[in-house]
Amino acid sequence: MIQSRKKQIQQIIGLKRLDGLLVTNITNIRYLTGFTGSSGFVIITRNRGIFFTDFRYREQSEKEVKGFEIGIEKGKRIRLIRSFVKKAGIKKLGFEKTISYEFYELLKKISVQLLPQKHIIEDMRKIKDEEEIENIKKAVKRAEEAFLKIKPRIRVGVKEREIALRLEEQLKRVGCKDIPFDTIVASGKNSSMPHARPSEKKIEKGDFVIIDWGGEYNGYYSDMTRTFLMDCVGLDKKIEIYNTVNYARQRAIKSIKEGLKTQEIDSIVRNIIKKAGYGEFFGHGTGHGVGLDVHEYPHVSWNKGEKIRNNMVFTIEPGIYIPELGGVRIEDMILVRNGKAELLTDLSRELEIIK
Amino acid sequence: MIQSRKKQIQQIIGLKRLDGLLVTNITNIRYLTGFTGSSGFVIITRNRGIFFTDFRYREQSEKEVKGFEIGIEKGKRIRLIRSFVKKAGIKKLGFEKTISYEFYELLKKISVQLLPQKHIIEDMRKIKDEEEIENIKKAVKRAEEAFLKIKPRIRVGVKEREIALRLEEQLKRVGCKDIPFDTIVASGKNSSMPHARPSEKKIEKGDFVIIDWGGEYNGYYSDMTRTFLMDCVGLDKKIEIYNTVNYARQRAIKSIKEGLKTQEIDSIVRNIIKKAGYGEFFGHGTGHGVGLDVHEYPHVSWNKGEKIRNNMVFTIEPGIYIPELGGVRIEDMILVRNGKAELLTDLSRELEIIK
Repeated sequence: MIQSRKKQIQQIIGLKRLDGLLVTNITNIRYLTGFTGSSGFVIITRNRGIFFTDFRYREQSEKEVKGFEIGIEKGKRIRLIRSFVKKAGIKKLGFEKTISYEFYELLKKISVQLLPQKHIIEDMRKIKDEEEIENIKKAVKRAEEAFLKIKPRIRVGVKEREIALRLEEQLKRVGCKDIPFDTIVASGKNSSMPHARPSEKKIEKGDFVIIDWGGEYNGYYSDMTRTFLMDCVGLDKKIEIYNTVNYARQRAIKSIKEGLKTQEIDSIVRNIIKKAGYGEFFGHGTGHGVGLDVHEYPHVSWNKGEKIRNNMVFTIEPGIYIPELGGVRIEDMILVRNGKAELLTDLSRELEIIK
Repeated sequence: MIQSRKKQIQQIIGLKRLDGLLVTNITNIRYLTGFTGSSGFVIITRNRGIFFTDFRYREQSEKEVKGFEIGIEKGKRIRLIRSFVKKAGIKKLGFEKTISYEFYELLKKISVQLLPQKHIIEDMRKIKDEEEIENIKKAVKRAEEAFLKIKPRIRVGVKEREIALRLEEQLKRVGCKDIPFDTIVASGKNSSMPHARPSEKKIEKGDFVIIDWGGEYNGYYSDMTRTFLMDCVGLDKKIEIYNTVNYARQRAIKSIKEGLKTQEIDSIVRNIIKKAGYGEFFGHGTGHGVGLDVHEYPHVSWNKGEKIRNNMVFTIEPGIYIPELGGVRIEDMILVRNGKAELLTDLSRELEIIK
């Protein structure tokens, strides 16, 4: 499947009347070429595809890169681009808008017409092929497998950091080459910060414990969150909060269908939380695409809308975060198949009160 | 010390006749404000400093950010900037060149004169204060301590990945909240790729084993490399290569003095390696600054020169990489003190042949 991507780009640049496209985003480069290193760039013309990297990645690129010529950068990148553009007779060069302003200033000095392009490859990446879906499923499996191994550690008196550390160890043990983001373990008051870092705080009675983590397989990521509640007297309000989040999650997933706008999913979630009286305590979006990046398109949010299509993979992750009291987030990953959501994550979302 | 940084910027923007500076690089934001989260931006005017972040980081920023007003982003970032610029009466706004072209396009729509600024804060960050130096020293200590715990695992028959995994476990155990980059363990043929990822390959007799890793303390990083040789008959050429790299390293560190250009250090290293007949096998720069980023200014390379100053911290890391045969890299971190290099890394660099 990776082999067809270059051709697809060549068609797009034909339609856009470009002579070439400069690809600088390293994840997009991996998507196109298979290169897993951290430095390089690609130029695709109507009939060629060249991957450039520096000396350090020569051997690696020879092993990994398929379907592209390989060039080794010597000296400054901008000179190489200039000389290639000249030799290839490129008059109109597309570039990815994600480049830095600094690099754009250098490009401007090349005598070529520069045409900014908005996520051409990111748009392709939204629709996963079967191989990508397999990778993502395996990344989910690894994440769940690792989690189940450390789950018994979620007990009163255990430090957040200890749990995070053990979970990351297990993620590596089950084979993840890297993890998509630092594991979040946030308990009690800390759980009211959606992006809290694991601290030395020990888990206490009555705490919510949010665990947000991800796995990896073949460069593809997974992302999920579960929240537990530590037993105590007087949990009624917390149970109600949990059930509100979980209900919003459920309704959102059920609502997913081909052609619906992602904004509409977000508004289902937001309305349920609002009606329950917690509107001001859900400040983030409802979800995001997951693939070679752990945050990618589509966005599922109030201010960004696009149509849901088959083979999209994204998260649904409503939350309620109340300062001092704590927070709940439940995050699943779904795949759009046959026009509706198929759950990729499997661990139970029923409220679990840990004694 | 962090408190004086805002003032320093305010002086710089005064000299540059700017009304304000938009700071978008997240590491620069941490440097200025103390905020350790991953989303936010800063605007500094001649008499104010405001840190903006979104809902998710409200509580965290209230805990961490010192010396700045805090604003919570609602809606689109660009609108917030526009309304702030208007209210504050900013006519000339500096911005960091590292912003994306995409964001620059949005900024252009604000009625304000935009003036790109080249690493104002990165330049400040090159000169470390005492607190930063303490943090870096502790990051080095943690890295060395973790390494010594796993060193006995460097044996014939052990997989590269196993060593990398154990080292990363130990780095977390000794307290690193994150690690600056994926640990490199590259043996035999793999060691000829300067940025190889740890593989399932087992260490064999006669292999070079390159280990490149780093620690963290309070957000500051360390970065070091050691290369070991596995015992075998017929190691003469490999020993010669090792000693060449080590000699180059030694000479480079001795050469360091205040006022010298970093290019000159690079050329000392490069000449030694060239004279020994390995010129074509050393393709990367000699070193780089280390601090809140593991790669920062100054660059120590053939194509970038700047004057060495007291309180700079950077690596010296010559290498020789020969396809099929293998590679050697030895990387130390130094601090410029009283006009010359003080070694921050402590582990032996003498060739160790492991039986």
